Amino acid sequence: MGIVTIVGAGMMGTAMAVPALDNGNEVRVVGTHLDREIVERLGMDGYHLNMKRTLPQGIRYFQVEEMETALEGADLLIGGVSSFGVEWFGEQVLPKIPDGLPVLMVTKGMAADGEGNLSPFPRYLAGKFPGRKLLLNAVGGPCISYELVDRNQTCVAFCGEEMEVLRRIKDMLATDYYHISLSTDVAGVECAVALKNAYALGVSLAIGLGNRKNGPQAKEEYNPQAALFGQSVKEMGKLIALAGGNQENNIVYGAGDLYVTVFGGRTRRIGTLLGEGKTYAQAVEILAGVTLESVAIIRVILGALEKLEHRGLTSRQEFPLMLEMGRLLEEGEAVDVPWKSFEREEN
Amino acid sequence: MGIVTIVGAGMMGTAMAVPALDNGNEVRVVGTHLDREIVERLGMDGYHLNMKRTLPQGIRYFQVEEMETALEGADLLIGGVSSFGVEWFGEQVLPKIPDGLPVLMVTKGMAADGEGNLSPFPRYLAGKFPGRKLLLNAVGGPCISYELVDRNQTCVAFCGEEMEVLRRIKDMLATDYYHISLSTDVAGVECAVALKNAYALGVSLAIGLGNRKNGPQAKEEYNPQAALFGQSVKEMGKLIALAGGNQENNIVYGAGDLYVTVFGGRTRRIGTLLGEGKTYAQAVEILAGVTLESVAIIRVILGALEKLEHRGLTSRQEFPLMLEMGRLLEEGEAVDVPWKSFEREEN
Repeated sequence: MGIVTIVGAGMMGTAMAVPALDNGNEVRVVGTHLDREIVERLGMDGYHLNMKRTLPQGIRYFQVEEMETALEGADLLIGGVSSFGVEWFGEQVLPKIPDGLPVLMVTKGMAADGEGNLSPFPRYLAGKFPGRKLLLNAVGGPCISYELVDRNQTCVAFCGEEMEVLRRIKDMLATDYYHISLSTDVAGVECAVALKNAYALGVSLAIGLGNRKNGPQAKEEYNPQAALFGQSVKEMGKLIALAGGNQENNIVYGAGDLYVTVFGGRTRRIGTLLGEGKTYAQAVEILAGVTLESVAIIRVILGALEKLEHRGLTSRQEFPLMLEMGRLLEEGEAVDVPWKSFEREEN
Repeated sequence: MGIVTIVGAGMMGTAMAVPALDNGNEVRVVGTHLDREIVERLGMDGYHLNMKRTLPQGIRYFQVEEMETALEGADLLIGGVSSFGVEWFGEQVLPKIPDGLPVLMVTKGMAADGEGNLSPFPRYLAGKFPGRKLLLNAVGGPCISYELVDRNQTCVAFCGEEMEVLRRIKDMLATDYYHISLSTDVAGVECAVALKNAYALGVSLAIGLGNRKNGPQAKEEYNPQAALFGQSVKEMGKLIALAGGNQENNIVYGAGDLYVTVFGGRTRRIGTLLGEGKTYAQAVEILAGVTLESVAIIRVILGALEKLEHRGLTSRQEFPLMLEMGRLLEEGEAVDVPWKSFEREEN
């Protein structure tokens, strides 16, 4: 097939090596400066220290200093950094590639400009290179990294500006367990992906509330979880519309992705702790060292909503669950879900 | 407040007694001919044999022969029968009530006419009484019956033709744990509720597939579940649109309701068995005696889709998961999820 270079050796970036390899590509994984130990161990025996999985043989591993070698002749670049690495990716990686090289990012997040306008990461990054014609695309839809390595059946969506480019990328990665829909609705697919990290925290509050009421060993309560799930999908749809995305089509990816994140992701842990009544400071102490993308996206959204409200484009009262999550990130606040505010009337 | 009479002493019908009672109403529960033992025991000590919960004191219980007494002076009638009892409810209960009495049905299902036109139950029943002006409304949204009895936080939607009537019903039932949205989009809310029973079977196939692959004690796999969840919401939206409902707003209730049904409902059991590779006949034998509303709704939908396709209004190929569920109900067929058919391209 071709050469696939993955920059970022975190869990999701590295996991993409499996469908790439199964598809007959030459696969190269490059760690960032933060991945030094991970890459060292991967190079020894293919074991990923964080994912706790051994990758299949045949993948080549590179430290960050060897990035240019790893990029040589690549037919596809996969951006495997987390949302905290997106600036680094823009500064350290994108300047090193030719315009015609398709890029597929697994990074999940949104950026807001000074006026509160929300952008998905591919457009945000493209905006940093006004003279260039970069082919930036991204992955959305529900996918837990280690399940992809286990070759579980997985349905995702690739989004980007040009369908032709998306089809080329799909050809390099589709397998009999990795199923890929394509969409040019970058705002819809990518914002859903980013927002689900925020709202998975919201849904998980119910798990913590249940633990507090019944003890952590008791059977989970699903009515409150489902109520928060429904409210989450509702607010996600409104935010996607504010970002210019097609909420009708892409609520599909958002809902599935929210589902998987509540059950399989790290966000469940912080939501559960906050739901149990712990303050944010206490929760962070317990989760020492865990990457909290959910918290970052909540802060971006709340900042943007304030500006958008000021401009008369929305009202923050339409996002009661997002507001509650924001309140919980403040010093010393404990959970108090505004259930009544989820009610609505529609003719 | 007023007098609330519930006809049907199954789990969901009986559970509605709790918010009705907490709201200060006089509450009367009438069993159908199938509920004789349940009502007998409820009358003794308030214990519900199927739900395995003791109801709060103060509710009055009636056998089916005493229905007219129980309906006397009622301000609200709650229809608590399952979808299999909807004809009985139309023939035995609705003729006994005055037109002005608001009716709220917990029955979840859809009917199709000879041309494949899909109707939510309230409209289907109203069609049987062309000369009358019945006030038929229904409950949608995620709610497990015993969790309502436990007074867990629950967010539902009442739907009906007239907002004023919906507000009156809400006033009689809203509590600090039972939160009620209102909608005049009967097709949207009710079809979502009915369809989630079908698609919860579809999502649960992944649980069975996982059991078969890894053993029932292994950690659940979420990528396949989430893929089926996303596909389910997508197909539900299309079916709601075919029934004339507002899919954009009501996917919210559908997605939350699907979530709760996968985790807390009976449908999970049959989906899991089919996913493990058992035939429908084998699964039914294992589940002896369990009410399979999911199967009934799948058959209604497939029958309707065939006719709608014949009329050029849709193509069955747009519903690959529904088709797979239909195939599984045929003699001797084992699961084979058509993952690739879930892929799509959208510009």
